[in-house]
Amino acid sequence: MSKSEVAQLPVLESEIVVPCCPPIAAGELSQADAEKMAAMFKALSDPVRLRLFSKVASHPGGEACVCDIADVGVSQPTVSHHLKKLREAGLLTSERRGTWVYYQVAPSVVAAMSAMLDLRT
Amino acid sequence: MSKSEVAQLPVLESEIVVPCCPPIAAGELSQADAEKMAAMFKALSDPVRLRLFSKVASHPGGEACVCDIADVGVSQPTVSHHLKKLREAGLLTSERRGTWVYYQVAPSVVAAMSAMLDLRT
Repeated sequence: MSKSEVAQLPVLESEIVVPCCPPIAAGELSQADAEKMAAMFKALSDPVRLRLFSKVASHPGGEACVCDIADVGVSQPTVSHHLKKLREAGLLTSERRGTWVYYQVAPSVVAAMSAMLDLRT
Repeated sequence: MSKSEVAQLPVLESEIVVPCCPPIAAGELSQADAEKMAAMFKALSDPVRLRLFSKVASHPGGEACVCDIADVGVSQPTVSHHLKKLREAGLLTSERRGTWVYYQVAPSVVAAMSAMLDLRT
């Protein structure tokens, strides 16, 4: 990974990874929070993206090489497209090491989504 | 609510409300589970639907009359369309009482979605 790529990734992540949002039952959502949350749920609204995300999440250490997870029955460019969507939503982070790109689950973002759906609050 | 409507609602619900699916980190998702989960997340992938859902969930007793929640800045037919999508996904149930339709959160479905995003398993 080049120096400029290393510098770029965390910036991208910090823009998108949000300690967002209040639990859905805690009160009426603001328009801004609703838009942020909708974007995160949208990232999980496609079966191929869910399967790719699940493959990364269930891989030892919550990290997987793209070479380990690409067998979801769609073309490689489609896999790349879906992984990009998951990354843009903040659910996955990625890092290039040598030939391969490795994807990691962003546990704080996934936990925040889970907490949004906690009705006990 | 007429007798035929009463008979119809639980059937609709039992077809769609799924004790679905395994936590996303528990292993690779099957195609069938991925499709079910994607449909549920898709229901929450729109800001207006999220705001409507949040209004019902945060209403006392987790139930609200459509007359209480329709002020989300879109037309009444659009509100109806979004409420239908939430009902079809199993996240809300509905019941007509006199003039108004009342919507209730389906807590077991929402809890199942929250559990899918539990990475501790």
